[in-house]
Amino acid sequence: MKSVDHSAIVILGASGDLARRKLIPALDSLKQSGRIGENCVVVGSGRKEFSDEEFRSHVDASPAIAPLLHYHAGIPGLKAYLGGLGRFETVIVFFSLPPKVYADTAAALEEEGFGEETRIIVEKPFGYDVESSRELNRRLAEHFPEVNIYRIDHYLAKEAVQNILVFRFANSLFYPTWNSGYIESIQINASEELGVESRGSYFDGAGVLRDMVQNHLMQMLSLMTMEAPVTLESEDIRVQKVNVLKALEVVRFARGQYEGYRSEPMVDPDSTTETYAELELRIRNFRWEGVPVYIRTGKALGRKGTEIGIRFKKLPKLLYNHDGNLEPNRIIFQIQPTTGIVIDHTVKVPGTDRTIAQSQLDFCLSDAFGPPVVEDAYQRLLMDALDGDRTLYVSAQETELAWKVLEEVVNQDELFLYRRGSMPKSALGVDWIDFTGYQSGC
Amino acid sequence: MKSVDHSAIVILGASGDLARRKLIPALDSLKQSGRIGENCVVVGSGRKEFSDEEFRSHVDASPAIAPLLHYHAGIPGLKAYLGGLGRFETVIVFFSLPPKVYADTAAALEEEGFGEETRIIVEKPFGYDVESSRELNRRLAEHFPEVNIYRIDHYLAKEAVQNILVFRFANSLFYPTWNSGYIESIQINASEELGVESRGSYFDGAGVLRDMVQNHLMQMLSLMTMEAPVTLESEDIRVQKVNVLKALEVVRFARGQYEGYRSEPMVDPDSTTETYAELELRIRNFRWEGVPVYIRTGKALGRKGTEIGIRFKKLPKLLYNHDGNLEPNRIIFQIQPTTGIVIDHTVKVPGTDRTIAQSQLDFCLSDAFGPPVVEDAYQRLLMDALDGDRTLYVSAQETELAWKVLEEVVNQDELFLYRRGSMPKSALGVDWIDFTGYQSGC
Repeated sequence: MKSVDHSAIVILGASGDLARRKLIPALDSLKQSGRIGENCVVVGSGRKEFSDEEFRSHVDASPAIAPLLHYHAGIPGLKAYLGGLGRFETVIVFFSLPPKVYADTAAALEEEGFGEETRIIVEKPFGYDVESSRELNRRLAEHFPEVNIYRIDHYLAKEAVQNILVFRFANSLFYPTWNSGYIESIQINASEELGVESRGSYFDGAGVLRDMVQNHLMQMLSLMTMEAPVTLESEDIRVQKVNVLKALEVVRFARGQYEGYRSEPMVDPDSTTETYAELELRIRNFRWEGVPVYIRTGKALGRKGTEIGIRFKKLPKLLYNHDGNLEPNRIIFQIQPTTGIVIDHTVKVPGTDRTIAQSQLDFCLSDAFGPPVVEDAYQRLLMDALDGDRTLYVSAQETELAWKVLEEVVNQDELFLYRRGSMPKSALGVDWIDFTGYQSGC
Repeated sequence: MKSVDHSAIVILGASGDLARRKLIPALDSLKQSGRIGENCVVVGSGRKEFSDEEFRSHVDASPAIAPLLHYHAGIPGLKAYLGGLGRFETVIVFFSLPPKVYADTAAALEEEGFGEETRIIVEKPFGYDVESSRELNRRLAEHFPEVNIYRIDHYLAKEAVQNILVFRFANSLFYPTWNSGYIESIQINASEELGVESRGSYFDGAGVLRDMVQNHLMQMLSLMTMEAPVTLESEDIRVQKVNVLKALEVVRFARGQYEGYRSEPMVDPDSTTETYAELELRIRNFRWEGVPVYIRTGKALGRKGTEIGIRFKKLPKLLYNHDGNLEPNRIIFQIQPTTGIVIDHTVKVPGTDRTIAQSQLDFCLSDAFGPPVVEDAYQRLLMDALDGDRTLYVSAQETELAWKVLEEVVNQDELFLYRRGSMPKSALGVDWIDFTGYQSGC
């Protein structure tokens, strides 16, 4: 286990919800497990005026983390305040702020004297399209080098997502089949049961393409299809993800909106924002030519679940069920809420002559290692940032390339409507895997 | 489901144990499930004099099977007796007899007028070595054509064994790796906890090489490594099994005997019969050159279990655990008492940075299809013989070739001793898979 000491964690927007609900509890856990030492400090900063004690109380600090917590209102004077608390080998600044102020905040930090060794952590959205993402990256880069800009994609911190590269590159059984010779298609699904709820204001300006596809689903797609990295260094992995994104193009897509969306709070009554999207993409490279990659994601659907399905090609010769009904093998990566892997394979039905059926080889990630040590994504991400490990963070180049892939798609208006709580029939005629059949493994 | 009618099943040696304990109960089940019709007859024949009623009572016949049961003492007159019971489209004759009388019995049947369309069913041992097996086959062939000689290998009727070809040839995920490019070694294990018990007289004249390796383990080896058959017709499968046996050779072997074996009832006090054997074989063909096949079987061992392990090669490049400790993938076929498949693969340990560990993808054959419809091997085998399906039976050519592979091995004297109830260290230095670790899946 990594551990650090003599580090400063600055949280901008510290009086907000995220700090109290996620960041301070994550730091508390890290402190309690000894992964951040006694000589670290956590400095909250925001528009409100708090004493240290008021801040500790505001965030419900536990006795473990409370002694490390401090507060300084606003950025001016923050550098000197930090200097008064000690000397720190590492300073990370978490932007718990609206993205529209990221660039100005970076400028203010530099002006305040935070050097380029300072690591800044920002959350999505990283821009609104190709142009705006480039502009944001350009402006951040004026103040901090790319190597110290940490862009969070929460999906990358999920255990089941981290396991994708292990599955692919630490198993000699599977890698020989991981190409267009054996794989027929790849399906990436992210279904939500909830509608926009209280997020109408943000969501109506985004849509699922910006909120889910450009970041989380593109990242999973890259991990699932990238070439083997030369090493596991974050830069070597990034290069291979970038190679996928450069080769990626959308060949078809469809946008949907659930009935009643326009009446949701804070949503434009004439909104053409998509709450559902389905895409067929192709990766134009040697490994994947001819293999469609399908993405489907939506809100207010009939089920909740994120999973990736690999569908294998038919056998070269059908010995069993030669009327053509032999189901192809599938590997299902269950990302959430279940975390596991299922291999759907063909077996002989016991007691019959040669009747065959599909059955499952199951692996439940959350059960396999005893009571799961569920590490909150923020624990992992903060620890990696303190340690300088950018593997689970997204680079400027990746965000811009992902926007570029979606360039033609994100500004469309055409929509079909679907009923709340339904699973709309594939708008592209894709033969979607019924992922519900795989929920029982864990 | 297959079903037959107007068939006669003749059991020679019908007053013996096998008929009462196995054959009649199997026929009873087939009758009750409607797979053998009202116009079938089962004629017991033996040295004892029974009336039909006495025979029915002797074998504890249920009301379902009793009306079909008849008895005729000895072979002379049997044909006429059968003629008196009706006209039958199919006649099968089960030799529940000592192998040494097989040939004379076949001659007597022919003399009695059983034509070459009669199917005869015999059980192992099929000879004692190459010469004696050829002689037995030659003599049987004087009276009945090979196509009507059904040699039982009980292992072939096991569900987990029947599933081997389905796994290999109905799954596009696995077949690309099934060769020397990806597979490092194949291990076939059959461990028994029991010693010779009451079978000392038979066993001491045989040994595990003749009792287990020449038949059951060679058959499993063939199924695991054969080329794809052109169709699933028994002849097409046989051809490919024969191709393996022709290419097979023993490169090393070791024989063992458990301490105390020579004091077992009916065992020669100076016996050099092996109760344990370990072999390294090679299949000299394009697919398997360079891949050792290990066989291990024994009695009075520390555990009971039959399984086949496929160990995959190392990855071409170790990204994870590059100190060289990355365990290779394994596929474990559990044959008995557990019937299932386990894929041992590498996963990321949740909550760690990039620590990896082995974990299991599990498939339990006996659980997957609800409460298992356990079909007794004899039900399946008798039904197949009535139907003329020889897929689960062994040909003359296979038995002779299997003897030939073991020619240099079966007449050796050298032995090492092992303790009853132990698992002897591999005499050949083979890194045996610890199959006990895979017993929990079902």
